[in-house]
Amino acid sequence: MIVVMKAHSDAKDVERVLTFLENHGLSGHPSSGVERTVIGVLGGVGPSGAPGSIGGINPSLGEALESLPSVESVLRVSKPYKLASREFHPEDTQVDVPVPCVADGVGGAFKPSTSPYGFRGMGEQGLKLLSKARSEFGMAVITEVMTPTDVDLVCEYADILQIGTRNMQNYMLLDEVGRTNKPVVLKRGMSATIEEWLLAAEYILAQGNRNVILCERGIRTFEKVTRNTMDISAIPLIKHLSHLPIISDPSQGTGRRDLVTPMSLASIAAGTDGLLIEVHPNPDEALKDGAQSLTIQQFQALMPQIQSVVHAIGRAVVTK
Amino acid sequence: MIVVMKAHSDAKDVERVLTFLENHGLSGHPSSGVERTVIGVLGGVGPSGAPGSIGGINPSLGEALESLPSVESVLRVSKPYKLASREFHPEDTQVDVPVPCVADGVGGAFKPSTSPYGFRGMGEQGLKLLSKARSEFGMAVITEVMTPTDVDLVCEYADILQIGTRNMQNYMLLDEVGRTNKPVVLKRGMSATIEEWLLAAEYILAQGNRNVILCERGIRTFEKVTRNTMDISAIPLIKHLSHLPIISDPSQGTGRRDLVTPMSLASIAAGTDGLLIEVHPNPDEALKDGAQSLTIQQFQALMPQIQSVVHAIGRAVVTK
Amino acid sequence: MIVVMKAHSDAKDVERVLTFLENHGLSGHPSSGVERTVIGVLGGVGPSGAPGSIGGINPSLGEALESLPSVESVLRVSKPYKLASREFHPEDTQVDVPVPCVADGVGGAFKPSTSPYGFRGMGEQGLKLLSKARSEFGMAVITEVMTPTDVDLVCEYADILQIGTRNMQNYMLLDEVGRTNKPVVLKRGMSATIEEWLLAAEYILAQGNRNVILCERGIRTFEKVTRNTMDISAIPLIKHLSHLPIISDPSQGTGRRDLVTPMSLASIAAGTDGLLIEVHPNPDEALKDGAQSLTIQQFQALMPQIQSVVHAIGRAVVTK
Amino acid sequence: MIVVMKAHSDAKDVERVLTFLENHGLSGHPSSGVERTVIGVLGGVGPSGAPGSIGGINPSLGEALESLPSVESVLRVSKPYKLASREFHPEDTQVDVPVPCVADGVGGAFKPSTSPYGFRGMGEQGLKLLSKARSEFGMAVITEVMTPTDVDLVCEYADILQIGTRNMQNYMLLDEVGRTNKPVVLKRGMSATIEEWLLAAEYILAQGNRNVILCERGIRTFEKVTRNTMDISAIPLIKHLSHLPIISDPSQGTGRRDLVTPMSLASIAAGTDGLLIEVHPNPDEALKDGAQSLTIQQFQALMPQIQSVVHAIGRAVVTK
Repeated sequence: MIVVMKAHSDAKDVERVLTFLENHGLSGHPSSGVERTVIGVLGGVGPSGAPGSIGGINPSLGEALESLPSVESVLRVSKPYKLASREFHPEDTQVDVPVPCVADGVGGAFKPSTSPYGFRGMGEQGLKLLSKARSEFGMAVITEVMTPTDVDLVCEYADILQIGTRNMQNYMLLDEVGRTNKPVVLKRGMSATIEEWLLAAEYILAQGNRNVILCERGIRTFEKVTRNTMDISAIPLIKHLSHLPIISDPSQGTGRRDLVTPMSLASIAAGTDGLLIEVHPNPDEALKDGAQSLTIQQFQALMPQIQSVVHAIGRAVVTK
Repeated sequence: MIVVMKAHSDAKDVERVLTFLENHGLSGHPSSGVERTVIGVLGGVGPSGAPGSIGGINPSLGEALESLPSVESVLRVSKPYKLASREFHPEDTQVDVPVPCVADGVGGAFKPSTSPYGFRGMGEQGLKLLSKARSEFGMAVITEVMTPTDVDLVCEYADILQIGTRNMQNYMLLDEVGRTNKPVVLKRGMSATIEEWLLAAEYILAQGNRNVILCERGIRTFEKVTRNTMDISAIPLIKHLSHLPIISDPSQGTGRRDLVTPMSLASIAAGTDGLLIEVHPNPDEALKDGAQSLTIQQFQALMPQIQSVVHAIGRAVVTK
Repeated sequence: MIVVMKAHSDAKDVERVLTFLENHGLSGHPSSGVERTVIGVLGGVGPSGAPGSIGGINPSLGEALESLPSVESVLRVSKPYKLASREFHPEDTQVDVPVPCVADGVGGAFKPSTSPYGFRGMGEQGLKLLSKARSEFGMAVITEVMTPTDVDLVCEYADILQIGTRNMQNYMLLDEVGRTNKPVVLKRGMSATIEEWLLAAEYILAQGNRNVILCERGIRTFEKVTRNTMDISAIPLIKHLSHLPIISDPSQGTGRRDLVTPMSLASIAAGTDGLLIEVHPNPDEALKDGAQSLTIQQFQALMPQIQSVVHAIGRAVVTK
Repeated sequence: MIVVMKAHSDAKDVERVLTFLENHGLSGHPSSGVERTVIGVLGGVGPSGAPGSIGGINPSLGEALESLPSVESVLRVSKPYKLASREFHPEDTQVDVPVPCVADGVGGAFKPSTSPYGFRGMGEQGLKLLSKARSEFGMAVITEVMTPTDVDLVCEYADILQIGTRNMQNYMLLDEVGRTNKPVVLKRGMSATIEEWLLAAEYILAQGNRNVILCERGIRTFEKVTRNTMDISAIPLIKHLSHLPIISDPSQGTGRRDLVTPMSLASIAAGTDGLLIEVHPNPDEALKDGAQSLTIQQFQALMPQIQSVVHAIGRAVVTK
C-alpha cells in the first residue's frame, strides 16, 4: 500500500500516519516530493494466506487509513486475491470435466427468474430428468445451485455445479460449493469487475475446492439492443491474471440467437477454453430463453466453424 | 404486449403469430401501417396475481415471441410487478419500525465481504451484542441476513431484517424473509434497474410479508471518485411507481464521509422516508467502512440540518 | 409509433390524443385491452428521407406525445435512421481505400488530448510529414479531423478522414465531412449506443458522402483494468442493422498492448472488415499511447495469425 | 507519480526505470517491500502551469512508463488539472451573470439533435429573437454554441455561452470560448468522469477566460426509466475539488417533468449554485423537449419551495 498525504500536510501529520501503521504491525517509509509526501507501507509477515491478511495486510486497513484527516488517498499495490492469481500458481489449472454436457436441457432444476411469477425450475424432479438424460445419452450434467442447503442434493445428480450471475457474491453459497470437490462454473456477476470475480473464485478456492471454471456471460452497460455486452477482453485478461480456465456463454451474453455464432467464434479466437451454448429442438416453444437458443440445425452448422477457428489459432477441440 | 413485425413480413407471417398467441390463450389484434404491421396482444384472465401470470400473461412469452422469425421486437405495455405497484395499491404503505435504530453497531452479525479474507461478522455472538445494546439503550436492531437458514435466528434478535445489495436477487432468501412478518430493508442491487428492484420486492410481498422498505444505496457507474453513484432520482421515481416506503443510505452510496451530509439533505429534499447513516465514535478504528462513517460530533451537527430541510418541504421528523 | 395510455384513462383522454395526432397530420388507431388502451400511429407520406421526417414522422413528436397527461409511454416502432439501414440498402457497401495505411505515424496532425497540457498534434506540419511518408513508402494516410474549418486542409493531405470518439456527435463536423467525398472512419462515441452511432453516420450520408466506415473502439464501463471495454458484439450487430463496413480498433479499445493480438483475432472471427492497430518501432518512447502500441516484431508475429483466422472463417485478406 | 514494479523484477529492471526517468528530467526513489519494489517519482520544475507539464511532469509519461516490460502499473499522485483545482485557488470563484435568464426560449439558435432529421435550431434568426426577448422582458440570454466559427456571432447576442454535453470534449471549441470573456456554462459530458469534466474546464481557463460555470445534467447509466441518471453527489464533490460554481439541470438530467421539482430541491440541498429549468407555456406543443418542461403554473409552484429549501440550508436566493 502507498499512502498519499494531502498537499499541505506537515511533519506531524506524517508522524500520525506512521504511528497508526505501527499500531497495526506495519512500517511506513515516507518520501517527500516537491508537492506531496507519500508513504510506502510494508506488510508484516510476508505472503501468508491466513484469513484476515493478504501479504500480512488486512484489507480493511486501507479504508481506515483513507479516513485519517491528512490522507488524500491510499493506493493498493498488491492484488487482493492470491490462490486465484497466476503469480501464486503460474501453471494453467486444468479442470477435468466430461464433454459434451447437457445443461438444464429439460427445464432445469433451479432457475433464477427476475419475476416471482416466472418459471423457477422443477427442483428435484428436474434433477432426476437431467440424470436420466445423462444415463441415456452418455452426457454430463451441469446445473445451477442457488442456495447452500441445495448443494448436497445437486451434487448427487450433477457432474458440474453452476453459480449464476446473481449469486456470484452469495458468499455462503460460495463457501458451501468450496467444501465439495465438484467442478464449479462461476458465472461473472452482471456488473462485477474482473477483480471481484477473481475474489469470488478465491472464496471457493479458499475452502479447498480447486476445480473452478470462470464463465464470461456479458456485463451490464447502457446499450439496449443486446441483453448484455459480452466482454471478450475478459478472456485474455483472466488468462493473464489467473491460472483458472475460462469459458464463454454467448447465449446469455447477447440474448440473441443471431449473435451466438459470431460471438462463439470471437470467444475462441480470444482464447476461451470452452463454450456454453443453448440449443433447443424448437426454441419458439422453450419455457425460457428461447430467443437466445440455437436450433439443432444452427448448432450443427456452428460446429465445423468452431473447429476451423480452434485450429487456426493452434489449439484442438477435446472430445473425450 | 405489442408485437412489431419485420418490415417485409406478409399476411402469412402475421397469421403464424396470431396462431402462436391463440395456442397460449391470448388474442392478437393486428393493425397495418405504411411500413409495418403491429399486433396488440390481449391477456386472458384479467389482473390476477396467480403465479405464472401477470394480467394473464406469462413473462417468458415475450421472449418466445421475439424469437419468431418474422418478429422484429416485442414491446411490453404492462408493468411486470403488481403487488409492489402504485396502480394496484394507490395509498402509501406505512411500515411500523421503532426509531432510532442501532444497525450493526458493535461489529455486526453477518457481513458481506468482497474478499474471503475480510471481516465477515461475528455471527450469533454479534446478534447477542446487538440485542444487549437494544435493551440497554432502548434502540431497535437492524441487521443483515445473508442466507435462508439464518432467517429464523436473525428474527429472534433483530427488529428489522436487511437484505444487502449483493443479495437483492437471492431469490430463496427473498422467499424466506417473505414468510416472516418482520420489516425488511431491501437494498438496491449495485446495478439493478428500478424495475428489477421492484420485482425483488414483489418476491417478498408475494409470500405475504407486506413490510418492505426499499433502500437506495448507490449504483455502479464509470465514475471512480466515489464508491458508487447515488441515484437520488430513484426516490421520487419509486414514490411514483410504488406505494412502498423508500429510505436512503448516503454512507454506502458515496463511500466518503464528507459527502454524507449533503447527500442526506438531498435525499430528504427529494422525498426520502428515512436515512441510514453510519456513525462511529472513532471511525479511524472501525473494523469496516470507517471512511464513510460520521463521527458522533458530525452526526450531532447533521441532525438540526435534517430537521430544517424536512420542515422546509413540509414534512416532519418522527421520533417515536 | 405506439402510444400507451395510462391505466385509468378514459374515452375523452383517448380522444385528446387522437386530435393531437390529427393536428400533426397523423392518424391514430386505438385498441382497448383488459388493462389499457394503446393507440397505433400511422405516418403520413411514406418512407421519405426529407429533413424533419422519418417515414413521415417528426422525431420530436414522440416526446411531445409522452408529455400528454394521460399518456403512459410512447413506443417507437421504426428505426430512426434510414440511409444507414440495411432495410433501405440491403447490399453491403464497399468503401474503396488504399491499404496498408499509415495513421498518424509521425506524431499526428490533430490529436485530441484530455488535458490541455498534453500533446495536441503538429497541425499542418504533421500533415506534411504524413504526406511525405505516403510518397516515400507508398502508404495511404488516415488522420483525424477535429473541427469543420480544418476539413479542407486535411482533405488536401489525407486519403481517409477520421472522426474521433469525442467528436462522434459534433454535428457540424459530421455535416462538413459529409460534403466531401473522402472515405470517413467514424469512431464510436465512448458511451454511444449502436443507434446513436448509426444516426451519426446518417448525418454524413445525408450530406451525400456514402463512404462511411464505422469503427468500434471500446465503450466506457465500470471495469477499471482496461481503458475501455471492446464491444465485439457490435460487429455482427452493425452487419445486421446496416450496410456500412465496420472495422475494429483493439489498441484504443483495450489500451493494453498484451490484449491487442487476442482482440484482433476476436474481431476478425466476429466479422470485422478491417483492423486499426497501433505499431511503433519503440513504443516506450512514443509521444502518446505507447502502452497500447505493438512493436514491429509483435506486429509481424500477428499478421500470419490474422491470415489464419481470416481464412478459417472463409474470408480473404485484401492487400491491394 | 509512483511506479509499481512487477513481483519478480530485479535490480537491473529497477535501474532501467531510473535511467528512463533521468532521461526525461525526473528522479526516481525506489523503496523495496517484501513483495514488490515501488519507485516514487519527483518532478523537475515545480508547480508550473506551462503547456506540456503538470508540476513538471508530462501527462503522457505515465503511459510510457506503464509500457516498460518490468512495470506493473503507474499510480498518479497529483491531480491533472491545476487552474480548476481548489488547491490552486482556495476561494470560491464568483461568476457575475444577470438573472433570471431566458435560455433558448423561442426555438433556440443552435440545437444539437441526435438525428439529422430533428430540429437543429434557427441559427442567427433564433439569436435575433432571443435578443428581442432580452430587450423586451429584461432577461439575460443564454444559448448554446456548437462550433468555433460561431463563437463570435453568438457572443454578439448572448450574455452567457453554453457548451452542450456532446461538445464537452470539443477541444477547439473550448479553446475558442476560452478566448472570450463571456460566462460559459460547461455541461458535463454524458459519460464524463469528474476529472475529465474539470480538465475540460481547464481548457477554457488555460486560455484566460475565468468565467466558467459547471453544469451537472445527468450521466448515462444502465437505467432505462429516466433519460439520464442525475449525479447529485457531483455537486458537493466539485465544491470539494474546485473553486468553480456549479449549477444543476434537472430537466435534461431526468427527461421527465414529474421529476424536475424533487430533483431541483435535492440539488439545492446538496449545495448547487443555480438551476437550469425548462419551462414552456404549452409544453405539449414545444418543438423539442416538451416532456421535460414545466408549465408556467408548475414553475410558479416550484419557486416558493426552492426559496424554502435554500433558506433551510442557510443560503439566499439572488434576484438581481
